[in-house]
Amino acid sequence: MFLIPWAKRQPKRIYLDYAAATPLLPEVKKSMEPFLTNFFANPSAIHQEGSQAKQAVVKARQDIATILGVRPGRVTFTSGGTESNNLAILGLVKKLHREEGVPYNQMEILTTRIEHPSVLAVLPILRNTGVKINFVEVDSEGKITLPTLIAALTPKTVLVTFAYANSEIGVIQPVQRLVREIRRFEKKLQHKIIVHIDAAQAPLWLPCKLPDLGVDLMSLDVAKCGGPKGVGLLVAHGDISLFPILYGGGQEEGLRPGTENVAGIVGAAAAIRLAQATYKMRSKKVTVVRDKFFQLLSEMLPGGTVNGPLGESRLSNNINFSLPGFDTEYAVVYLDKHGIAASTKSACAGAGGGESTVVLAISGDDKRAKSTLRLSLGEETEVRDLEKVIVLLKKYLEMMSSLTQ
Amino acid sequence: MFLIPWAKRQPKRIYLDYAAATPLLPEVKKSMEPFLTNFFANPSAIHQEGSQAKQAVVKARQDIATILGVRPGRVTFTSGGTESNNLAILGLVKKLHREEGVPYNQMEILTTRIEHPSVLAVLPILRNTGVKINFVEVDSEGKITLPTLIAALTPKTVLVTFAYANSEIGVIQPVQRLVREIRRFEKKLQHKIIVHIDAAQAPLWLPCKLPDLGVDLMSLDVAKCGGPKGVGLLVAHGDISLFPILYGGGQEEGLRPGTENVAGIVGAAAAIRLAQATYKMRSKKVTVVRDKFFQLLSEMLPGGTVNGPLGESRLSNNINFSLPGFDTEYAVVYLDKHGIAASTKSACAGAGGGESTVVLAISGDDKRAKSTLRLSLGEETEVRDLEKVIVLLKKYLEMMSSLTQ
Repeated sequence: MFLIPWAKRQPKRIYLDYAAATPLLPEVKKSMEPFLTNFFANPSAIHQEGSQAKQAVVKARQDIATILGVRPGRVTFTSGGTESNNLAILGLVKKLHREEGVPYNQMEILTTRIEHPSVLAVLPILRNTGVKINFVEVDSEGKITLPTLIAALTPKTVLVTFAYANSEIGVIQPVQRLVREIRRFEKKLQHKIIVHIDAAQAPLWLPCKLPDLGVDLMSLDVAKCGGPKGVGLLVAHGDISLFPILYGGGQEEGLRPGTENVAGIVGAAAAIRLAQATYKMRSKKVTVVRDKFFQLLSEMLPGGTVNGPLGESRLSNNINFSLPGFDTEYAVVYLDKHGIAASTKSACAGAGGGESTVVLAISGDDKRAKSTLRLSLGEETEVRDLEKVIVLLKKYLEMMSSLTQ
Repeated sequence: MFLIPWAKRQPKRIYLDYAAATPLLPEVKKSMEPFLTNFFANPSAIHQEGSQAKQAVVKARQDIATILGVRPGRVTFTSGGTESNNLAILGLVKKLHREEGVPYNQMEILTTRIEHPSVLAVLPILRNTGVKINFVEVDSEGKITLPTLIAALTPKTVLVTFAYANSEIGVIQPVQRLVREIRRFEKKLQHKIIVHIDAAQAPLWLPCKLPDLGVDLMSLDVAKCGGPKGVGLLVAHGDISLFPILYGGGQEEGLRPGTENVAGIVGAAAAIRLAQATYKMRSKKVTVVRDKFFQLLSEMLPGGTVNGPLGESRLSNNINFSLPGFDTEYAVVYLDKHGIAASTKSACAGAGGGESTVVLAISGDDKRAKSTLRLSLGEETEVRDLEKVIVLLKKYLEMMSSLTQ
């Protein structure tokens, strides 16, 4: 066996990369078990075994719909957050083009430069077809401000897409306020603008009811909130319809073909239920730990620059700072050797070296963007875990300084 | 709890829908377990936990590559057979168009009318862009014959795509002979033609080494061969390259973004290993059971018409016949009530009513296409299970006849 069960042999490992992957919660795994054993049939089959599988998918969809405040038919299961973001953006543009005859060059998409690769990488594809991509400038903490948003909306804007909470720097966008402004603009122009948020980082820490947020579309990735890998959601509120991006059978109301991942879907419902049921308590608890870290950082590593906002506008479990001039990729390796799992940036953006496009976008500072460290906390993370990080980083910096002197 | 563990309460259920979904094998589930518990990290992360997850993905990819006779870098993990088929077809056309500048209307795709919905549904999308879709006629058993293939190839043919073994009528295409003919044509024209096979139904019953088959691309769905749902493979042999159809992170060598479904990928390797290690023995055993059924059918239900070939050109575990004039959707319900899980056609084609497009294509007979029954066997299926089906169907037919007299 090539695996070392680190949880046993290395009792002191401290995992601080919850933004990249969360453990599958035991309750979630338990809910999946029957569908990994006895209940294996294809939900499209009309026999008893098929209908048992279908029932499970129907129930999971209903549960999720209730939690997120939408109709069950508006919950679409995908293979993950990346596919959900692709489906939201490409599916809308295709729909407008093919079914409503809107020419590509009459469509504009509004977004920011700090989005996840699964949003940013879709945009050049659309730009090639003639769709115009407008980037709203974010402020120095990564926040979209009302005046810049208003200035960027045009009569051709068909979609505004941004992350509810940024996966690297943790900035939470003022979704409700932004949506209110977009709706006001919409009314003036009598022209529908779809608002899509990538909420992959949200369920454990933030409220996710679509009607309360006011958005039309929301992407989720259940592997980021205690669920299994390989399952995502695109959730819609209201009458918006999309064109599929994969073609085949009529599953998911024709929007997403392929045999349903029954166990994964059941696990998704359990994960989202658990995440949303206690997000307030969890968030409150972890915020205290996070803020203690920022205090320690300013006291013990005054050279560290926080990326993203402090306080309420920051995701409870997100810590991100730069150590300008230092190779933080090597710092991650150093921390790893001393029992701490951390990252420099989003795993999907290549977890290793290179600059953070997010930090570059908010700071324009190449040095700062090349020296980021992201620590993303879990419910179990304690202050002493973070103290250990600070102590190690201090040692690392001293070591590096002495080497370069 | 809304579930009834039928395996316990109804010990006599007979499952005959293995083509739609196979049980997750206990060995496969066991291989997945560590990655559903301790080893949950994101394989793109550079810390120890991430690297353990990555190692598992690397090993699974290597194992699969060895089994299928390709280089590891040519194994791409997807969310299932549907996505794999979409990626093969759309990915090739996009590649040729965007990177080699081939105009859409200079490309032709050759396929048949008996393909799975995940192939057939892609074609109108491409036809809309100007790509020409040519359908090779199949014979009355569903087989592609050399003369029709040769007649259908043109200098513009860029892709030939067909199922290795048809999921409804079980016809196995003479892949090697067809490929030989395509390569001969290729040489004459000095123009590359990609051969893609949908091998979703193959791994448990047929050899799947790409170099032996001579194909360039092969789609697999591990949920059809003892693996978990939500995992597929697109496997390439040779230097062919594709354009992605989803956009995001750089996973899967840039061809398929999104956090890897580690547990599913590990399960995929285990499933394919087990399937291919013993496919010959399994196939031999199940063929005997299948052929006994066909003998019983001709003796006891002489009105039944076999769909697809008999003998070696038929997938070992596939039984498909029509009972012209009878509502076989109701027959499936009747069988179900009497403990047997069967289907009329492919689950992805809507497992319930309506005609089978596959049987319509081979027969041109609407009545026959509307009265199909598919029984797909597993390794454990016994002759007496099938005898029970025959007896029940006889009763059903008598009942229906007496009702209509």
